[in-house]
Amino acid sequence: MPEHPETLADLRTVRVGGTELCVRDRGSGPAVVLLHGTTGSLGVWDAVVAHLGGAVRTVAVDQRGHGRSGRPASGYGADEYTADLLGLIAELDCGPAVVCGHSLGARNGVVAAAREPAAVRGVVALDYTPFIERRVLDELEARVRGGDRVFASAEEVAGYIRGRYPLMPEDAVRRRVAYGYTREAGGYRALADPAAMVRTVEGLRRDFAEETRAVAVPVTLVRGALSRLVSPDAFAATRRLRPDLRAVELPGVDHYVPEEAPERVAGLIREMVGAAP
Amino acid sequence: MPEHPETLADLRTVRVGGTELCVRDRGSGPAVVLLHGTTGSLGVWDAVVAHLGGAVRTVAVDQRGHGRSGRPASGYGADEYTADLLGLIAELDCGPAVVCGHSLGARNGVVAAAREPAAVRGVVALDYTPFIERRVLDELEARVRGGDRVFASAEEVAGYIRGRYPLMPEDAVRRRVAYGYTREAGGYRALADPAAMVRTVEGLRRDFAEETRAVAVPVTLVRGALSRLVSPDAFAATRRLRPDLRAVELPGVDHYVPEEAPERVAGLIREMVGAAP
Repeated sequence: MPEHPETLADLRTVRVGGTELCVRDRGSGPAVVLLHGTTGSLGVWDAVVAHLGGAVRTVAVDQRGHGRSGRPASGYGADEYTADLLGLIAELDCGPAVVCGHSLGARNGVVAAAREPAAVRGVVALDYTPFIERRVLDELEARVRGGDRVFASAEEVAGYIRGRYPLMPEDAVRRRVAYGYTREAGGYRALADPAAMVRTVEGLRRDFAEETRAVAVPVTLVRGALSRLVSPDAFAATRRLRPDLRAVELPGVDHYVPEEAPERVAGLIREMVGAAP
Repeated sequence: MPEHPETLADLRTVRVGGTELCVRDRGSGPAVVLLHGTTGSLGVWDAVVAHLGGAVRTVAVDQRGHGRSGRPASGYGADEYTADLLGLIAELDCGPAVVCGHSLGARNGVVAAAREPAAVRGVVALDYTPFIERRVLDELEARVRGGDRVFASAEEVAGYIRGRYPLMPEDAVRRRVAYGYTREAGGYRALADPAAMVRTVEGLRRDFAEETRAVAVPVTLVRGALSRLVSPDAFAATRRLRPDLRAVELPGVDHYVPEEAPERVAGLIREMVGAAP
């Protein structure tokens, strides 16, 4: 069992463009940038980082609007998210980096790699592909809007997370509470900015099949076999678009791949670090 | 705003076959039997019952394995559930009755109507149809298994319900806690029997297209437009199977139709009560 740091002590802030991004930068060696999904935070990667050990440099980021990073009033499309990623790689001088992204983060990693292959040498894309059905995004939007509420206690937050992510291990639930929520007058509230989340889901509606077709660095496509986000049809269409890319389906796992299958994710990252040019 | 009774005072038990079924039997007039979905309870119908008023007789049931009804060790397929329904209608001498069922309850209503049209004069089938994809049932099974846990407090239960059913109104969340959970040593636990729930989902894997093709009484098919259970494909296939049946899609509603759109459901029941022969 790897240790789970669950500490906010080694977080730091990097200014990229006009936005302060909160990061955790650990280990040394080839760099891996870790991008969470919509409403997530850098803490979703703790178990993956523990499994990777110190032989790679892991840079886990709170993306804009999320966690302890800045939350500009606008700018939650693929352009702004990927500009943040590329700016961060430049600022930390850690390129070309492998990017491992979950959901929103997978979209951002693939788009950034298509635009600036000199900065991104490989992408592990967890449970997000082009061709996601409109109704799935409608449902995601409704669910994200439903997360904007005040919770009476940390216990209620934990209950909420258990209900929303039924396959998530207990240690990951605990980390979601610790990293993703803050106590304020009247109770607990998600750090992820509600308006930013709505705009982020709007941004996901612009498909990225074009960038997926164009991306010239290695990409590993990963789907949780129980995913409600990436349907078998969407995954199959992506594989037809890019039959040359490695594609992996993980049994017994739903959308929340980094937290539900951290050892497998660490293995895929390690392989990408070894394989990418 | 209708009143929400949220009282356990007027529940009573009816013995059907070898099983004690807990029911709430209200109002008088043409009978409507209300069947909840997997892991639910008769309390999911409170708002629908309030909207219906007293001009119909509503019989809301905790189906076997659920709520305060008996939980035999086995017998959670369509045969046993529909035998309970038909036995209950006979026992209460309320047939031929309209049946309004949600999810599991919709399956049970359609199958019972196909088998015994003399007892069931019409069905309102909420967000469950034939042709549901295997992967959707895999995901449902994983989620149902995840609900088998002890909660530290009622607040944590409420949080869990809010996370699991993000579009559910607060009054319905409160009722899910009041009707569906019990305090035991160490915390709160769902009344729905974990082993029975797993067997129930297994039973849902047997498709009921045959009964849907055969059913000869009026059926209204209802789908929540944001449903994750009934895909547009499954709904379309059911409509092709039975183009003569009324089909309704409710915008902004996901799978939990009785709690999210009680007024619409009451209207559809009223129309079925009026239309059914």
